[in-house]
Amino acid sequence: MHIGIIGLGLIGGSLGLDLRSQGHYVWGLSRNQLTCDRAISLGVADFACLELGEIKDLDRTEVIFICTPIDAILSTIEAIAPHLNSSIILTDVGSVKSAIVYKAQKLHSRFIGGHPMAGTAFNGISAAQKNLFQDRPCVLTANSDTDPKAFNILRSLWQSVGAVVYECDPETHDRAVAWISHLPILVSAGLILACGREKDRAIAQLSQHLASSGFQDTSRVGGGNPQLGSLIAEYNQMALLDSLRQYQVVLADLIAQVESGNWESLEQSLILAQQLRNLYLP
Amino acid sequence: MHIGIIGLGLIGGSLGLDLRSQGHYVWGLSRNQLTCDRAISLGVADFACLELGEIKDLDRTEVIFICTPIDAILSTIEAIAPHLNSSIILTDVGSVKSAIVYKAQKLHSRFIGGHPMAGTAFNGISAAQKNLFQDRPCVLTANSDTDPKAFNILRSLWQSVGAVVYECDPETHDRAVAWISHLPILVSAGLILACGREKDRAIAQLSQHLASSGFQDTSRVGGGNPQLGSLIAEYNQMALLDSLRQYQVVLADLIAQVESGNWESLEQSLILAQQLRNLYLP
Repeated sequence: MHIGIIGLGLIGGSLGLDLRSQGHYVWGLSRNQLTCDRAISLGVADFACLELGEIKDLDRTEVIFICTPIDAILSTIEAIAPHLNSSIILTDVGSVKSAIVYKAQKLHSRFIGGHPMAGTAFNGISAAQKNLFQDRPCVLTANSDTDPKAFNILRSLWQSVGAVVYECDPETHDRAVAWISHLPILVSAGLILACGREKDRAIAQLSQHLASSGFQDTSRVGGGNPQLGSLIAEYNQMALLDSLRQYQVVLADLIAQVESGNWESLEQSLILAQQLRNLYLP
Repeated sequence: MHIGIIGLGLIGGSLGLDLRSQGHYVWGLSRNQLTCDRAISLGVADFACLELGEIKDLDRTEVIFICTPIDAILSTIEAIAPHLNSSIILTDVGSVKSAIVYKAQKLHSRFIGGHPMAGTAFNGISAAQKNLFQDRPCVLTANSDTDPKAFNILRSLWQSVGAVVYECDPETHDRAVAWISHLPILVSAGLILACGREKDRAIAQLSQHLASSGFQDTSRVGGGNPQLGSLIAEYNQMALLDSLRQYQVVLADLIAQVESGNWESLEQSLILAQQLRNLYLP
């Protein structure tokens, strides 16, 4: 199969490595010549360039993965759609779906939203690795406008690189990731910012000295990439807001239990949390 | 030095191993005969028994570490204090201090509050290990009633097992650990409980399938020992409440930024969180 990858970072690069291992021909597109050169030398792509026009036999391409940051996905589709055969399957790897899928389908009807849940602590093409998607979930979104044949082809491709594919509509995806991926970012950032409000210098310094693995784990995603966190909130605003408001209600409950000294009820809440958490562990 | 350890779990057991390596004579007290037997066979104590009365030459003991759960510390001191020479230094390893130190000092004037910040995922004497306290912080509390000589002896003992000792009053300790240890438990438990409120079965199930390292890290301490979490809240109620209320304010700010779509301001908050977090990393 001839496959294109636009955006050669961690996800695009890793996908290129795996797809080429499967025997596919992969071309890559990047805004950066150095990234194109690295893509070739690392084995991410058979051919890589800066402009769609440089790709020979573009009509032989069957699937194009858009692996840019989420705020560049729609503008990328807008730019390339006029040059594409209508039979080409277009897909993305963005962590939000509703804000992208419906607009993308209007620009190119054979668009299917995708979101592989895979990552490392590193970014960029140098972080690309084989088998990044092995046993990792990958959501593909389907709605009434989705072509079932295109969906099956894309599902097979993700399965061929080891991903466990889930199918749902864009809204279900966005609400699910709001809970387990986007809400944690703000909950965790809030923890750090609250600690930063301590006005007593001795207490603040001691808390910094005493912070250990519990604080570090709970604050990790809140201390992550600020631009990404903000983009995610922007593109998944409504689902995130709903999760945040429900979190506020739960927090108020916990505070009321501490305030009233209802330790039995607090312990019951913590027992429930411990039990519920098991549902989210692999 | 003759040293006693009451409560032979992870902390008491590990402390026994290290103190004996330093050449001290260590006796242990446990409510469980099997634990006493294990204490001897593991090298945690030279002698271990169920009752203080069984300890020969109790008057030769210079320091007693109370390593029971926090809700048993005061009752333990109440039970043993009448039998102790007034020169014995009494100390504990509880994770809250104000609720213990002042009452303990009334029961035995040479009491000094202690809190080594060390632990593993495991509990009990079988989890005891050498060098558990190496390079870990240990807080010792001092107030106007604290005997400086006793404080120095205790500090030297903790330093001899590798701990980095911090000195402060009980209130400073409690407010510092409320931020970095007790607040994270409820923030994290709240995240799990909020996710558990999702009523749509498809969304709930998908979120469980998609949860990955970000959710797992952020929810870890909230899914920990419910009894311990509840006890900590009970014994550090006021400091924890203050942290929780300040967290509520920060959370409301973040929600307002998402609600109003003020992405620049949200990104600034996340940049600040990222910078602040570095102050809490070792």
